[in-house]
Amino acid sequence: MGERPNHMSPEEFRQAGYQAVDWVADYMARLGDLPVKSSAHPGDVRAMLPAEAPKHGEDFSEVLADLGRVILPGITHWQAPGFFAYFSANASGPSALADLVSSGLGAQGMMWDTGPAVTELEQHVLDWLAVEMDLPEKFRGNGVIQDSASSSTLCAVLAARHRAGGINALPNLVAYASEQAHSSVEKGLRVAGIPADRMRPIATTPDYAMRADHLAYEIVKDKNDGLTPFFVAATVGTTATTGIDPVTEVAWVASNFDAWTHVDAAFAGTAALCPEMRFLNAGLETADSYVFNPHKWLLTSFDCSAFYVADRASLTEALSIAPEYLRNPASESGTVVDYRDWQVPLGRRFRALKLWFVLRHYGLEGLRAHIRRHLAWARELTEWVESDHRFELAAPTVVSLVCFRHKDGNKATSRILEAVNQSGRAYLTSTALGGQIILRVAIGSPQTERHHIEDLWNLIQSVA
Amino acid sequence: MGERPNHMSPEEFRQAGYQAVDWVADYMARLGDLPVKSSAHPGDVRAMLPAEAPKHGEDFSEVLADLGRVILPGITHWQAPGFFAYFSANASGPSALADLVSSGLGAQGMMWDTGPAVTELEQHVLDWLAVEMDLPEKFRGNGVIQDSASSSTLCAVLAARHRAGGINALPNLVAYASEQAHSSVEKGLRVAGIPADRMRPIATTPDYAMRADHLAYEIVKDKNDGLTPFFVAATVGTTATTGIDPVTEVAWVASNFDAWTHVDAAFAGTAALCPEMRFLNAGLETADSYVFNPHKWLLTSFDCSAFYVADRASLTEALSIAPEYLRNPASESGTVVDYRDWQVPLGRRFRALKLWFVLRHYGLEGLRAHIRRHLAWARELTEWVESDHRFELAAPTVVSLVCFRHKDGNKATSRILEAVNQSGRAYLTSTALGGQIILRVAIGSPQTERHHIEDLWNLIQSVA
Repeated sequence: MGERPNHMSPEEFRQAGYQAVDWVADYMARLGDLPVKSSAHPGDVRAMLPAEAPKHGEDFSEVLADLGRVILPGITHWQAPGFFAYFSANASGPSALADLVSSGLGAQGMMWDTGPAVTELEQHVLDWLAVEMDLPEKFRGNGVIQDSASSSTLCAVLAARHRAGGINALPNLVAYASEQAHSSVEKGLRVAGIPADRMRPIATTPDYAMRADHLAYEIVKDKNDGLTPFFVAATVGTTATTGIDPVTEVAWVASNFDAWTHVDAAFAGTAALCPEMRFLNAGLETADSYVFNPHKWLLTSFDCSAFYVADRASLTEALSIAPEYLRNPASESGTVVDYRDWQVPLGRRFRALKLWFVLRHYGLEGLRAHIRRHLAWARELTEWVESDHRFELAAPTVVSLVCFRHKDGNKATSRILEAVNQSGRAYLTSTALGGQIILRVAIGSPQTERHHIEDLWNLIQSVA
Repeated sequence: MGERPNHMSPEEFRQAGYQAVDWVADYMARLGDLPVKSSAHPGDVRAMLPAEAPKHGEDFSEVLADLGRVILPGITHWQAPGFFAYFSANASGPSALADLVSSGLGAQGMMWDTGPAVTELEQHVLDWLAVEMDLPEKFRGNGVIQDSASSSTLCAVLAARHRAGGINALPNLVAYASEQAHSSVEKGLRVAGIPADRMRPIATTPDYAMRADHLAYEIVKDKNDGLTPFFVAATVGTTATTGIDPVTEVAWVASNFDAWTHVDAAFAGTAALCPEMRFLNAGLETADSYVFNPHKWLLTSFDCSAFYVADRASLTEALSIAPEYLRNPASESGTVVDYRDWQVPLGRRFRALKLWFVLRHYGLEGLRAHIRRHLAWARELTEWVESDHRFELAAPTVVSLVCFRHKDGNKATSRILEAVNQSGRAYLTSTALGGQIILRVAIGSPQTERHHIEDLWNLIQSVA
């Protein structure tokens, strides 16, 4: 050591790379046999790590061995066939390999000039998706990859804030979202300087869809109080139950009062790739921005959130700062897109690669097949729940999330949850709605097959 | 197709994975021969991409072939030995392979409970770094990986805003940073609701270091005007010239007025891993938060920004929202860290893996050797510049950035910049200070050897 850092030569990288690929391939092969949820206790993982960082370099094979020994027991396997918790966060072979290439290239996409292909591939694949999902024309050419729907929603809030008068208007701004909206809406508003007491939670229908009449009522009331309704978040597929807000009515109300409509379709949006699911896009023609997460259900590993904005200028004017050290002829020509002005961070990873690899490996029909299987199994599971007198559905099954509870109440429902999760064969999460605990079976993992749904249902029935 | 999506089986992944590893290894091997800066024109890359997304899946080898044919000409090679632009954004073999494993695992680290090892490894490696960089004790156990220094700075602003009274205090809040601070400070403040006219640019010394006396003057003036000084950003290694703010004095002034001191050492901070560079940490004992980017100079590919905060509660109280569907016993026990409350996004990639792989592959001594070579070459280049009567240094060389200009003025300096960049052998960026254009030679790319610095200097001399 001392003199030269131990950089991997291309040949050393090749050998270590094969080992890493083998490790991941072996992991994929035994995913179905691992207990889905980690049973680690707080501190277990750290207790196995040395107190001090290594002074000298170690063999790559030792690192991989520790990956299995130290890290794996502390991993909850989000890609396991028995993972039905939260929403899925799809990984896939082509996506993982695109991430490898992205890290190998080490390119930077903060501006067009710092890596033209990084920006142009991103514009291109987001346009491909906009076309194939039949998003309104106004969103084409206006897509950007963010790390998460939370960041996309924050950007929508910032663009809306800018359109409504900017920071000076802050004390008057009021925002609206259904009681079932994701916590990221409140978080984005808070970050942007809109406190919780100027975010109006709008009541929902029994199907957990925002009541547009209540929205209109609240907006008019705020208007009369001299406030400025500036932002409405509509949700297509709420986190608790995949409730669908009536975007057409919501966006119509919002636009009549010059408020920005942001549509959060983080999980459910992917399904619109299938023509029969295009009802999920209803009302988008009046919306100002739209987000869905390919990293949830479109086989593109985290992080990859696709954010579209109709009026690009509101976004870039809200976020653009052009210091001297970033000036370059391409940016000044106005002929290129500099994505640094479409997001909070400056630096940007080459994330479009993974969408591109996924689209080319699976093809549109392959991706649709991936989605349709989950839709079909969710319908089947829904029927099984309906035909078992001990259970009742807690919400309509719209896409691939099935919500139900034991009729005997919270205790019986919780007992099932614990038993399923302790079995190691499956992992569910619950939520509470109106005091009632509800089981959520979120179907979306790539390795899940129909028999895993059957196994889960048998397990649930045997506990019940 | 139709029936089943074309998921890669473990064996198919293994074969495709070897191909991808080969592609990256071959890329690494010929990096030195590629023109550093892409000569693509706007639209060139998109013109080579089909207008429509593929209906059916394609062979992985075709995708890799297009990677070379379509994408590579549009890539500026940030890892090339002749890359001296901006600051380096280090990639490395172990880091790229950790990204592969991270994507293969597809784990989620939004809470401890969603992947205990994701959180605990992150805590552990950030503590390793805090110890080895000799950061103040208060930062240990209080580190988090963000995607970028921009996001870290935004989080610092939000924590400071919270401590100063939160959103209700916004109209009175004033922030301070030197005229040479990074644009992300203004951006973070803007996002959080503090407009540019309540951010005071503080004058600098001839070495581009913040004048603490001016800071004190501005703070007192604002106090007298009934405003609330709440946030001071000090920079250790400014973007233009790696100027070093006097953090001890700056933080002393700030703390006397209850303002939060955030230290942005995005690039230069890494050097503190070497004991002889610990002067870069001066004053941190009084600072409230600190950020440096392993993805710049520590061989850990983007995105990996290490953010430390002394008073963790200010940060988590500023960002925490706990909806029903994320409740879990581990979080409620208070014994674990849920990193979703330390950042804006909810979802989190397993980024600690790459820091771990890098630390173990290189060892601390290997990483120090990596840094010391660049420090030594920057000193040499500085001497060469000083001994050539046609040039003059534009700023002191503190770490590995050398700033100089042609004595004949901007035209002569710009001519050199263009000639170097058009050569394809090296890529520099410039900045302007006080109307003078300055060449920046930022040494930091992993493949750079001493002879590349010599080549660059010969090229510059021959143009001059």
